[in-house]
Amino acid sequence: MDREMELNSLGEFGLIRRIASAVKVPDGVLGIGDDCATLPQKEGMETLVTTDMLVEGSHFLLDDIPAYMLGWKSAAVNISDIAAMGGRPSASFLSLALPGKLGSEWLDEFMQGYLDLSKRYGCTLLGGDTTSSPDRLCINVTVLGESVHGQAKLRSGAVPGDLICVSGPLGDSAGGLRVILDRLERGADEKELVRRHYAPLPRVSEGLALAATEGVHAMMDISDGIGSDLRHILEASGTGAEVDLKALPLSDELRHCCERHGWDPYRLACSGGEDYELLFTAAPDTELPTWAKVIGRITDGSELKWTGSDEDYGGFAHF
Amino acid sequence: MDREMELNSLGEFGLIRRIASAVKVPDGVLGIGDDCATLPQKEGMETLVTTDMLVEGSHFLLDDIPAYMLGWKSAAVNISDIAAMGGRPSASFLSLALPGKLGSEWLDEFMQGYLDLSKRYGCTLLGGDTTSSPDRLCINVTVLGESVHGQAKLRSGAVPGDLICVSGPLGDSAGGLRVILDRLERGADEKELVRRHYAPLPRVSEGLALAATEGVHAMMDISDGIGSDLRHILEASGTGAEVDLKALPLSDELRHCCERHGWDPYRLACSGGEDYELLFTAAPDTELPTWAKVIGRITDGSELKWTGSDEDYGGFAHF
Repeated sequence: MDREMELNSLGEFGLIRRIASAVKVPDGVLGIGDDCATLPQKEGMETLVTTDMLVEGSHFLLDDIPAYMLGWKSAAVNISDIAAMGGRPSASFLSLALPGKLGSEWLDEFMQGYLDLSKRYGCTLLGGDTTSSPDRLCINVTVLGESVHGQAKLRSGAVPGDLICVSGPLGDSAGGLRVILDRLERGADEKELVRRHYAPLPRVSEGLALAATEGVHAMMDISDGIGSDLRHILEASGTGAEVDLKALPLSDELRHCCERHGWDPYRLACSGGEDYELLFTAAPDTELPTWAKVIGRITDGSELKWTGSDEDYGGFAHF
Repeated sequence: MDREMELNSLGEFGLIRRIASAVKVPDGVLGIGDDCATLPQKEGMETLVTTDMLVEGSHFLLDDIPAYMLGWKSAAVNISDIAAMGGRPSASFLSLALPGKLGSEWLDEFMQGYLDLSKRYGCTLLGGDTTSSPDRLCINVTVLGESVHGQAKLRSGAVPGDLICVSGPLGDSAGGLRVILDRLERGADEKELVRRHYAPLPRVSEGLALAATEGVHAMMDISDGIGSDLRHILEASGTGAEVDLKALPLSDELRHCCERHGWDPYRLACSGGEDYELLFTAAPDTELPTWAKVIGRITDGSELKWTGSDEDYGGFAHF
């Protein structure tokens, strides 16, 4: 039924041509325009693949998020999954189901954000699909990355005694979401939190450095909130953990906003999600990068214990 | 905002676990359960990637297509793109935005169709994304395949003098769609057309054979209808073509239905789409497989000429 899928006056093929013209494809790689894209393989390397779907009304509201930011974020959350295993992003595939209410100006801004973020990380748009949607925007992104064989860090590698670390401050994105939803006035701090919510920066170089560090045992990115995400490492590794709530790194901007608006910073940091920082475990004698913040330790058993909290945080012990 | 995405009572993680348990992952490959899937690379091989999005209301109506068939078709149309370049499908990634109206029984049947088709072609489900949708079902599939370096057949390889061939009968799927939409009584012929519409069989082994044949110059699959699809080869190759309308292969089932219901078989074969047969060009001295049907010839210039048609088919000359 492809003939029913014409996109406004531009048409599907015109749209694809316009997007393709904005992309520079590396030598030896075949991009947009054929039935498939092709990428050369290399002995000793592994291909990493991740995919994410974002649906209007479930993941974002079109009135809230600027088109540029939505494009940026759609690429960023997938590239973050490549970073989470210590890989290098290489190629992306973007599917868009576009409702008639979105014009070519909106699409241009979306693509600009998508391509700006992708370029920053050396990730080339090599294909996708465009179709019309009866009402809601639906976005699917697939990102391919590469990793040296055997170096990809899994969730299942944690060992009792490991330090638990994060790559940067937590809770900023959740704070930014509150600024947006509560329609708060935006000073410099609020603006920075909103930026962190709309335009996360995947930790690719940090992930690559950790992948090359033997003492790093397990890794993932923080998308749902550390309370929920750490559980995945514990389940996959068959271990428990003890985390010092007060050791969770908080940005100055989040601290300021918490004071100003009466928010609980640890609640945002624990369960807020969408920070896209790396969460990893490492043997205690590992030489850690300066940006790594130790927040706890992997233990025997299967329990996730929070320390350093007063009674109010008891509820976070069992997600 | 992942916490808002719980899928009915099963939950996102329960759903993923259930799907993962139905999949057997090859040695050396990492499937569902981490931030990315991983696949080993091999010198001299190329990775092929294709993706397709299917939206309820644009591509299918839930009342019309059985869940099993929709799962089958979602995998098939992507595997067909791998076949179209002469590749071997290896892995797939399935994103589903599920509306609340679809229960776990529907989902089980959908997955059964998806996995049955995938297994038939050696394509392993290695990951994906599941999320809730406010109203409509949206499906995105990405399929990876492999090809020997330099063997993938592109749309751009056609040369004047080449024979134009197809791998099998055209128009069956379009006929099946008419049976469905016109709610016709289904005898054996009608049933077969509907089956061809709902459950296409991608021409993977045929594509592999053609990829290994040097004389084959250009290839793609027929998804939009040969009139529109052949145009892509002509544009990419900078050539024209002469096609004998009466040489288009028609199945007996389609002929019978056309007689019975007064349909025009050539109109269905030309512009119907969704046949997922291969369309390819080959040097005239190429030893062609027995299933290949010659339908025309690549010419100089840029025109697509139809011969063997009476006046009524003039309109098909310019898609």
